[in-house]
Amino acid sequence: MSDIDVSEVHEAPATPSRRQFLRGAAIAVAVPAVAGALAACKSEGAGGAAAGGTAAGKATPPGATVHADSDHSGGSTAAHPTVPASAQAAAEEMDRHHEAGIKAFPAATKGKGNQLMQPRLEGGVKVYDLTAEKIQWEVAPGQVLEAWAYNGQVPGPQIRVKEGDRVRINFTNKLEESSAIHFHGISLPNGMDGVPFITQPPVKPGATFVYEFTVPNAGSHMYHSHMNAAKQVTLGLLGAFIVEPRGGETRRADIDYVMILNDGPHGYTLNGKGFPATEPIVANRGQKVRVRFMNEGMMIHPMHLHGMPMLVTHKDGYPQPQPWLCDTLNIAPGERWDVMIDCDNPGTWAFHCHILTHAEGPMGMFGMVTALIVK
Amino acid sequence: MSDIDVSEVHEAPATPSRRQFLRGAAIAVAVPAVAGALAACKSEGAGGAAAGGTAAGKATPPGATVHADSDHSGGSTAAHPTVPASAQAAAEEMDRHHEAGIKAFPAATKGKGNQLMQPRLEGGVKVYDLTAEKIQWEVAPGQVLEAWAYNGQVPGPQIRVKEGDRVRINFTNKLEESSAIHFHGISLPNGMDGVPFITQPPVKPGATFVYEFTVPNAGSHMYHSHMNAAKQVTLGLLGAFIVEPRGGETRRADIDYVMILNDGPHGYTLNGKGFPATEPIVANRGQKVRVRFMNEGMMIHPMHLHGMPMLVTHKDGYPQPQPWLCDTLNIAPGERWDVMIDCDNPGTWAFHCHILTHAEGPMGMFGMVTALIVK
Amino acid sequence: MSDIDVSEVHEAPATPSRRQFLRGAAIAVAVPAVAGALAACKSEGAGGAAAGGTAAGKATPPGATVHADSDHSGGSTAAHPTVPASAQAAAEEMDRHHEAGIKAFPAATKGKGNQLMQPRLEGGVKVYDLTAEKIQWEVAPGQVLEAWAYNGQVPGPQIRVKEGDRVRINFTNKLEESSAIHFHGISLPNGMDGVPFITQPPVKPGATFVYEFTVPNAGSHMYHSHMNAAKQVTLGLLGAFIVEPRGGETRRADIDYVMILNDGPHGYTLNGKGFPATEPIVANRGQKVRVRFMNEGMMIHPMHLHGMPMLVTHKDGYPQPQPWLCDTLNIAPGERWDVMIDCDNPGTWAFHCHILTHAEGPMGMFGMVTALIVK
Repeated sequence: MSDIDVSEVHEAPATPSRRQFLRGAAIAVAVPAVAGALAACKSEGAGGAAAGGTAAGKATPPGATVHADSDHSGGSTAAHPTVPASAQAAAEEMDRHHEAGIKAFPAATKGKGNQLMQPRLEGGVKVYDLTAEKIQWEVAPGQVLEAWAYNGQVPGPQIRVKEGDRVRINFTNKLEESSAIHFHGISLPNGMDGVPFITQPPVKPGATFVYEFTVPNAGSHMYHSHMNAAKQVTLGLLGAFIVEPRGGETRRADIDYVMILNDGPHGYTLNGKGFPATEPIVANRGQKVRVRFMNEGMMIHPMHLHGMPMLVTHKDGYPQPQPWLCDTLNIAPGERWDVMIDCDNPGTWAFHCHILTHAEGPMGMFGMVTALIVK
Repeated sequence: MSDIDVSEVHEAPATPSRRQFLRGAAIAVAVPAVAGALAACKSEGAGGAAAGGTAAGKATPPGATVHADSDHSGGSTAAHPTVPASAQAAAEEMDRHHEAGIKAFPAATKGKGNQLMQPRLEGGVKVYDLTAEKIQWEVAPGQVLEAWAYNGQVPGPQIRVKEGDRVRINFTNKLEESSAIHFHGISLPNGMDGVPFITQPPVKPGATFVYEFTVPNAGSHMYHSHMNAAKQVTLGLLGAFIVEPRGGETRRADIDYVMILNDGPHGYTLNGKGFPATEPIVANRGQKVRVRFMNEGMMIHPMHLHGMPMLVTHKDGYPQPQPWLCDTLNIAPGERWDVMIDCDNPGTWAFHCHILTHAEGPMGMFGMVTALIVK
Repeated sequence: MSDIDVSEVHEAPATPSRRQFLRGAAIAVAVPAVAGALAACKSEGAGGAAAGGTAAGKATPPGATVHADSDHSGGSTAAHPTVPASAQAAAEEMDRHHEAGIKAFPAATKGKGNQLMQPRLEGGVKVYDLTAEKIQWEVAPGQVLEAWAYNGQVPGPQIRVKEGDRVRINFTNKLEESSAIHFHGISLPNGMDGVPFITQPPVKPGATFVYEFTVPNAGSHMYHSHMNAAKQVTLGLLGAFIVEPRGGETRRADIDYVMILNDGPHGYTLNGKGFPATEPIVANRGQKVRVRFMNEGMMIHPMHLHGMPMLVTHKDGYPQPQPWLCDTLNIAPGERWDVMIDCDNPGTWAFHCHILTHAEGPMGMFGMVTALIVK
């Protein structure tokens, strides 16, 4: 997704204009969909040669200079002291790992969490069946781990209702320990609050408990276990519970995206997956994207978006008195923050936790990394 | 504190109305005071039977369904594959531990910190004597640990003065290492700032140092050691220093509650105690509660209140330009945040750090958990 | 920098007035510059005697009382049970370590990071050459560690440009692994975003890559490696990239100070140095200081200023809708926060991370501690 034409290192500077290049890149991304979106650099084949000189059959000197220019053409050549061969090899090996991760993005894995769940209507009540159960979950390609999940998904199915809706949730516990569902952020009658021994008996293995309530307050909320929760939630018993305001959202979004952060036994995940199995957000230039960040982990995660600022509009479902801009938003456990992104800058933009040890290591990116792709 | 009538599992759905039930529950809580407030569920005795079927003499099938309804009656029965007996036993054992913790809340322990201290007046000066000393402190029932405390309390006695008051603090150090008191957040003359070797000599073992100043700025402030502070403060040398604005607080609170977070050698504590020895906040419906969060620990603590939002009004004693609502407030070390809670939702509401490992484990809740009880 | 005259313990209370004392202290600090600024207490020699009684030749009783008064003179006496001799000796030893650290501040070390870099102009373009290279870096006196640095500095040279400037950065990688520069917070064209394999090829060992762009948005931004970044950034590949608004800053600052936090293999550092090698901010009374906090580490750091509040004006380079006051500001990785300090309170004020384990231990202060000196 680069507007650098690396071929220019060895060719005359007959670079396509930035606009032409981006148009090409955008098409490359769009078809087929977004698969391999981040491999744009690599697919041009000249990346290695351009900046270091080891691609077979290209006699690039050990030091090379790339002149990249954001508005018009550029070009350059090389000349630097030779790097020791062993170091060079190690560096190439590291690069291969980094490149492989990025080429793989978005990687296919089995299972997708956070899928919108359609209720069935029973006498005007929106009814959802949620079953907690032990499953195997593919967090990243080939990394299959035990998860405790609602309806076989991590995060559990996304619930979206409207302020004032009557909702019934039939919760069945197929785990081997008790559980209960807390509707985090929703100001429910006490008996629906889901805290075992305080507001209800625990829902024992094999048992079913029925929650029913009229949804009182709008916002980006969550549902999750409130029993042995440090274990049950980090293993996957969590989901988004979005409540649209009675009059609709005040800010129009072309894309409304929920991003749930977690950091338990599955490692660092966005919507239950670690990079490169995370899901990019794909928007057209000019579109507005709402991201609803939700932290279900045990650590803070300052999420950083490249290329464009985020307008912070809501905290825990409540509007901030005045929205404010940032590019790095610190999200603490239990918090939800809504932001709006005005997609005015085309390209593939890294979007990751800025605790870098949650996002990248010597073997490349992992964990809490995704991308916003503006076509 | 539940509005679920678990007896309905085996009985006809002649459930008391929610209003009736809550009224009953509220009375149960009110007399005697709040002791055992969270045991409401358990005291109904049917919790176990309702949802899993092991209470002696009740032939509940291994899977049972409870239909809980927030506004009117409900009911249901069971039928699920049998859970292995060993898992069932382990689950019951876990539940017993969880229940025992909640039944014990608020548990009696020796010693109470953060007690309002009355000054003596000497020529118009409010005089406080603070003595630092090694003590034994019961953090949770039976868990007696060494603490370093002001006046035998953890947190130290709460100081409440008015903006413009003249205050004298006679600080005597009975520890075996030097100390000094920093008045965190109060814009004092430099010599009163309490930083050894920068603004004053250390207060050596056995010595006394007298702080005297006119209080310049209102707000939720703190006093604590500023010598070997990572040890001295986490061991207990800390307290609230509340300064009321000259004209009084702009927002009327029926209850003004200080909640000091700590996370050192005493584990995760609220006002020097870990759950179930923490103190519930008890309010009548319609009352307004101000909570002054203060973090004296080394970690962030995002405090989550169930059932009602918190209106954030002040940061470090300074008013926010416009108050804003949330249900989870991230409090970093050294920070103070004031919130107002409009107690419009009756019930017993969990109030805890949402870093779940600070609040609950397989053996039940512990550490940074308390409750807001709205009667 | 104390307004306590410790000599008064043994003398008549003929204390100089606070104003006289502060004037004297201010002069002591001003000449020579700020060297030894924090040793004011110690240089008076009586500190030890005043509060504990071990200074040779001074027969102070084992317990002594110092009456410090912020507005006028005071005095006092002693009398407390004797502390065991062994404890007394240990306490004295601890005090000596604490005092030594503070006396040493600001300690000279080799190398200074974050130095303002002057660009050369090439056809209206501001050109900066940045070279990444392994160096030895003196983090604190005598503590020389491997660092990976731009132009031999940690943090790298400070870049300051104006919104709309055309900038070229010639980046040469002399490390033994690939790298790339991300301009964190600047909304650049995608190809200039510095993410290997996404927006550009990696800059291989020995290679040069040229970034060129027109600076689109003002604010406190950063540049740093975006390759193996958890290692490369914490080892030093980072720097401030300040963009002044086209019309100039809306708030006038007499001193504009960048404070970059880091917490990797060099320990806890401010601008690449740990206390006592950190740099004090020195202002005259009445001046306004802007501090641009930037967190390049992996942990939050709630920075606490003694003596005066901080007015928070910008987050990540964007103005907050309305500025707000605090004394402790939590700065998460990747975040930048701008604050204004109205230096109306004379003295030497501790300025430190309030995660106390990042700032002080039994051997005294270290890491993320500096001072604001208001003369």
